[in-house]
Amino acid sequence: MPILTLLTDFGLEDYYVAAVKGTVLRLAPGAQVIDISHQVPAGDVETGSFLLAAAFPSFPAGTVHLAVVDPGVGSGRRILVAQVPSQVESDPPGWLVAPDNGLLTPLLPAAGPVRSVERSDLFLPGPSRTFHGRDRFAPVAAWLLRGEPAAELGPEVSDPRRLPHEPPRREERGISGRVAHIDRYGNLVTDIPAGWLPAGQVVAEVGFHATRHRATHYAEMPPGEAAILPGSLGTVEISINGEDLASRWSVSRGDPVRIVW
Amino acid sequence: MPILTLLTDFGLEDYYVAAVKGTVLRLAPGAQVIDISHQVPAGDVETGSFLLAAAFPSFPAGTVHLAVVDPGVGSGRRILVAQVPSQVESDPPGWLVAPDNGLLTPLLPAAGPVRSVERSDLFLPGPSRTFHGRDRFAPVAAWLLRGEPAAELGPEVSDPRRLPHEPPRREERGISGRVAHIDRYGNLVTDIPAGWLPAGQVVAEVGFHATRHRATHYAEMPPGEAAILPGSLGTVEISINGEDLASRWSVSRGDPVRIVW
Amino acid sequence: MPILTLLTDFGLEDYYVAAVKGTVLRLAPGAQVIDISHQVPAGDVETGSFLLAAAFPSFPAGTVHLAVVDPGVGSGRRILVAQVPSQVESDPPGWLVAPDNGLLTPLLPAAGPVRSVERSDLFLPGPSRTFHGRDRFAPVAAWLLRGEPAAELGPEVSDPRRLPHEPPRREERGISGRVAHIDRYGNLVTDIPAGWLPAGQVVAEVGFHATRHRATHYAEMPPGEAAILPGSLGTVEISINGEDLASRWSVSRGDPVRIVW
Repeated sequence: MPILTLLTDFGLEDYYVAAVKGTVLRLAPGAQVIDISHQVPAGDVETGSFLLAAAFPSFPAGTVHLAVVDPGVGSGRRILVAQVPSQVESDPPGWLVAPDNGLLTPLLPAAGPVRSVERSDLFLPGPSRTFHGRDRFAPVAAWLLRGEPAAELGPEVSDPRRLPHEPPRREERGISGRVAHIDRYGNLVTDIPAGWLPAGQVVAEVGFHATRHRATHYAEMPPGEAAILPGSLGTVEISINGEDLASRWSVSRGDPVRIVW
Repeated sequence: MPILTLLTDFGLEDYYVAAVKGTVLRLAPGAQVIDISHQVPAGDVETGSFLLAAAFPSFPAGTVHLAVVDPGVGSGRRILVAQVPSQVESDPPGWLVAPDNGLLTPLLPAAGPVRSVERSDLFLPGPSRTFHGRDRFAPVAAWLLRGEPAAELGPEVSDPRRLPHEPPRREERGISGRVAHIDRYGNLVTDIPAGWLPAGQVVAEVGFHATRHRATHYAEMPPGEAAILPGSLGTVEISINGEDLASRWSVSRGDPVRIVW
Repeated sequence: MPILTLLTDFGLEDYYVAAVKGTVLRLAPGAQVIDISHQVPAGDVETGSFLLAAAFPSFPAGTVHLAVVDPGVGSGRRILVAQVPSQVESDPPGWLVAPDNGLLTPLLPAAGPVRSVERSDLFLPGPSRTFHGRDRFAPVAAWLLRGEPAAELGPEVSDPRRLPHEPPRREERGISGRVAHIDRYGNLVTDIPAGWLPAGQVVAEVGFHATRHRATHYAEMPPGEAAILPGSLGTVEISINGEDLASRWSVSRGDPVRIVW
């Protein structure tokens, strides 16, 4: 039985996460459930999509990833299932299950067919239209965990919703990107590939702040000074050792980043 | 090996939850452990009982549910084990394990025999009387997970403690109930069965606030306006799309709710 | 497949914990993963070492404990693997995996050989030097979970770093110790063995505050009064029933505690 990962904005103080897990385990006994996070800010599809794409590559082939950050729950928005081919051809593909609201954006380029689930017979009756995580998404995830054919879930669709991200771009004497994520330490994770950084001296600018220090890890940074380093997702990170740089520089997710030379 | 669910007020910043899980897994190897929540406010038996009853129906037959919100730990309060018959006769029953302080209140009507655990031989010696979750409840849960007979845990009791809830009631031109729970989104979950709502126009009143809007899901609500909708537990919910209604209306758990027409 | 426990300061709002778990499960399929805590304050090695040592004894023989509170990530600090003999000779030993920064301090006296991991062939290439939890520690934990020989991980070392703790000491008419931990309820967990307390009257002093009440559990305490009791780790605890004593007395972890008679 493969692994199920769960990413939601349900928080941990409520019964919602447990109800989804209980339902999956009732319908797919023996599945191993691993949390990505349930602390996505309520309704924040962009943070959800970042975390899902960041965690995804670490999981084994065949894992089913269920992501429910779903402010449109109960409305007509579709439920999507996307197949992701594994890197080794003999391994089973992975699966993504999510509402059609952009959550899958960064993973779609690598995904195979995307389907819209049209199997109301699988859904639990549920007393309301406000908890599709339990009543609709969990049975779909259980279907895939049991190894049932995805093709029977619904027709292929060609227009999954995507978040409108401007990709980072190289310019004559610099690079423009944005703060894609602020992590729990206050590190600024950008969308700029670390491989784009030239070897010589550069300056990174975010808002009214800037740094020209470079480092390969936190302990190498000059104390009290921000520095540029290659981060754990292969993109440029801007950090300060032992301190919260996002607070110190008053940076928000989405803020523009310029690296110039 | 069946599933163990865990509900506590231990929080996630301490070693308490892990000590309970480790003890269960030492005594019942291979059990699958699923968290309901550990963020119950310290000592808040009422929130604990709500969450346990809300998550319970999603889990498979045979699940053992261990709930430890136990301000009376170490005192003479009893440890209860209650059997819950499964809906399908051929399925194994579920089990509830909790201190005798009202935690099981909403589940008792459906439960079979309730026993008071009197098996000090099963308890761990433990260096104190302050951590029965690890030293007493975990061994009892492991006993049930291993399929040992509940009848050997102690005698049946007829007087488990119950929280003193006034049930919702129908009146001539309305319904009276209360806010049973405020969820992480700030939705007001009432104890009023959604089926009691008449089809026509109604007004829901909480404190000095009121709404006459009705909806079936959040995205359907008029922006910035509270609305009445059937919630995920089959009771009436009062919510506002994308905002925290409990904060906006200054509502607390337990506040009276009136629906009139 | 044995159990893996995880203790980190990664928090629960990010993808870091999931990336470690996914990597372990990719390399050691079927391992059962149990969280100790991920809410260790960022970089707080002392809290991490306390929680690890507190949870450790509850877990079954053979468990692999992975602790990553690692402000020196990417620098030259070593990765340690320590074997902990089980209490029953026929049982498999437990394993500790952690950066060499003091995290293992309280468990070292009971540990067998400590090794420094020198197997860069096991490490994942990773795009950076900032996420050794995923790229280095996870593969080492997976190695041990698969039952591969620890001796092949690297040479024994005799100088693991230890946190500089002054142990509690008995004096002529009293005991001196410190607040080793403040738990989520605000209880003051000291490092003073509960067995050192004499039977007669004593006074416990922390800062400008003191109490002479004694209790065996919380419900026994005089309402609104702090009291001294034997805690769940076998050390003296100072608590107040239903209230946060650390806040009320403005106590911090590490503050001196005196018990006099």
